[in-house]
Amino acid sequence: MALIVQKYGGTSVGSVERIEAVAAKVAERRAAGDQMVVVVSAMSGETDRLLNLARAIQQPPSPRELDVLLATGEQVTIALLSMALEALGCPARSYTGAQVQVLTDSAHNKARIRDIDGERVRTDLSAGRVVVVAGFQGIDEHGNITTLGRGGSDTSAVAMAAALKADECQIYTDVDGVYTTDPRIEPRARRLARITFEEMLEMASLGSKVLQIRSVEFAGKYRVPLRVLSSFTAGEGTLITFDEDASVEEAKIAGIAFARDEAKLTILGVPDQPGVAHRILGPIADANIEVDMIVQNIAADHKTTDFTFTVQRGEYERALQLLKQTAATLQAREVQGDLNIVKLSLVGVGMRSHAGIASKMFAALAQEGINIRMISTSEIKISVVIDEKYLELGVRTLHEAFGLDVG
Amino acid sequence: MALIVQKYGGTSVGSVERIEAVAAKVAERRAAGDQMVVVVSAMSGETDRLLNLARAIQQPPSPRELDVLLATGEQVTIALLSMALEALGCPARSYTGAQVQVLTDSAHNKARIRDIDGERVRTDLSAGRVVVVAGFQGIDEHGNITTLGRGGSDTSAVAMAAALKADECQIYTDVDGVYTTDPRIEPRARRLARITFEEMLEMASLGSKVLQIRSVEFAGKYRVPLRVLSSFTAGEGTLITFDEDASVEEAKIAGIAFARDEAKLTILGVPDQPGVAHRILGPIADANIEVDMIVQNIAADHKTTDFTFTVQRGEYERALQLLKQTAATLQAREVQGDLNIVKLSLVGVGMRSHAGIASKMFAALAQEGINIRMISTSEIKISVVIDEKYLELGVRTLHEAFGLDVG
Repeated sequence: MALIVQKYGGTSVGSVERIEAVAAKVAERRAAGDQMVVVVSAMSGETDRLLNLARAIQQPPSPRELDVLLATGEQVTIALLSMALEALGCPARSYTGAQVQVLTDSAHNKARIRDIDGERVRTDLSAGRVVVVAGFQGIDEHGNITTLGRGGSDTSAVAMAAALKADECQIYTDVDGVYTTDPRIEPRARRLARITFEEMLEMASLGSKVLQIRSVEFAGKYRVPLRVLSSFTAGEGTLITFDEDASVEEAKIAGIAFARDEAKLTILGVPDQPGVAHRILGPIADANIEVDMIVQNIAADHKTTDFTFTVQRGEYERALQLLKQTAATLQAREVQGDLNIVKLSLVGVGMRSHAGIASKMFAALAQEGINIRMISTSEIKISVVIDEKYLELGVRTLHEAFGLDVG
Repeated sequence: MALIVQKYGGTSVGSVERIEAVAAKVAERRAAGDQMVVVVSAMSGETDRLLNLARAIQQPPSPRELDVLLATGEQVTIALLSMALEALGCPARSYTGAQVQVLTDSAHNKARIRDIDGERVRTDLSAGRVVVVAGFQGIDEHGNITTLGRGGSDTSAVAMAAALKADECQIYTDVDGVYTTDPRIEPRARRLARITFEEMLEMASLGSKVLQIRSVEFAGKYRVPLRVLSSFTAGEGTLITFDEDASVEEAKIAGIAFARDEAKLTILGVPDQPGVAHRILGPIADANIEVDMIVQNIAADHKTTDFTFTVQRGEYERALQLLKQTAATLQAREVQGDLNIVKLSLVGVGMRSHAGIASKMFAALAQEGINIRMISTSEIKISVVIDEKYLELGVRTLHEAFGLDVG
């Protein structure tokens, strides 16, 4: 008997028929003897419907009230899935984030989970019930409803698996696993049977939209075995493993990730003195804007520095305003921005033991005439910022250069 | 400065535009210096949409999960109304039933309020915020989401007004007050400027669908001044008063109520002995079926008794099954039922001091050839059960006979 946490996304529960299909799958597994906890998202389309209502009334909507509104999406799904399970004779009970005490911080619309009380869930499991939990939502210490932001249901599932010390956390989605890159861009992309936790973290954070990054972080922190599977087709999916040797079938590179909705901001001619990075990024962080790549160069005059970073495109305008204020305070020369960029990343734990990967990457891109605007590296990934128009060409070039193509 | 609790029903918050109109009305009153608490229902159509989803999955839906599902309806409205208030520069904060601790019993789908914690609301009011509360819903002592049943938002509003010791509880609806009878049946029906609490209780319970009966009971118990108003037209509405002398402008009769969805059950030839009424109605009550009128006659043989009662038409089949079991146990002769009946009631505190009202009522009906199948009286009302086909004729006949017509 295993304790399994499964998570089904919006598409998987997008209609009455699909909810019934999920119920059948869950009931079958429970009948086979496993204890089942199911975390679900809002039915596909529901979150957008609610967002449109909110936006028709207030622009931007109050973050606190938006969470109250959006949390209803998953609440509908948990009730319907529990009914579908009971209709199959499988005892079930639904819980909202508040009811199972998914305690988060108070950052509305992008809250982070601090703790989950697994007691209530364990009681139900012991009584033979399937427990259906609303993903994406929690409460803060004052009892306000919070949401984790889009994709947060993955994090809810992993956090629940960690709290319950589940044997496996299975994320059901509309793809059948993690691929070497997005098959819509490179049709020869391959499904990976395994990927290491660290690689997955880089793949997810860099835009392979299979799993939300925070859920992978959580899985890593609490060592929750994580599996990505398709709701619609059979198959083993991709297992995210902690065993590096078992990963990636001897390839050096796990895959090529990319992020489309990036924007670049540069502050030029900043006096080069200690603490300047903090003075530039502090206001950005205070405004809860996530910064991705950061690069700093000494300028030609050797007395000032140029400082570049990327943010999500949706945060660009806010970040630009803040940066202009900082530039005035610091007496910097100029602020520049670019909305038409993307990030391309090569990811693989194999980089640790193999040299020459970066130069091979740069050479492959150069051969196609793709200009590199920014470079950033870590132990297991190399990221470059390029013009948006080269995205598809860049992905396909690297996919072939590193031998990731099928067959 | 007054503390006002207002309640807006589903039609009043049925669209973005209507929610904005409610917000404008609330904000104006707050700007004039009042402290405002607003209780809202689900947007019209939403509860039916959710019910249809549930019924497509499970028949009948699990009561616990149905409450989880339906509670989302009001949660959407509180978020949207709070946004609309903030968009007008009026600080507002929304709360679900669980968040303000609307503690109920555990009778899912028809729970009763036990207690409300007004502390959190008072804190917000003191800080100058409008408080927007989800009607219709609460939680039980185990933290399960409960709902009060259709129309329960009125009760939520009155209970909130009682907990806060509000100066007035104003129920906004799609009618502009309480009428002498339903204007759709008798166009000459008049709006009452005032009505006593007791009369209102009889009018509501007897089918004048303006206010939910439980809300009137609550108002009576906690002496909450209650006013019914229209969301769509200006006017003073109808004040429900505790002062009998101030009521009904010297008329003996406040109005004529009726209940369309009644059904009648009769058990014939029951041995006439002490405790028999309890043995007949006990199982019905245990099944949570509400019994309305009860009449008991001695049968012709003087050894047995006939026992008749009415229930809501929707409960008829369940009640019939239970009654047949009871009949077998008690060795009663026969069980009869009738689905095609309605109840007509004359209501007025004036009955206390005026004789002859009942006979005048029976005479008026007899003159039109309307046969009376059951009679039940109380201090301030006389109810008769008649064939459904005579409903409209009966209402108009009594309305004229008791001088209630306009002008």
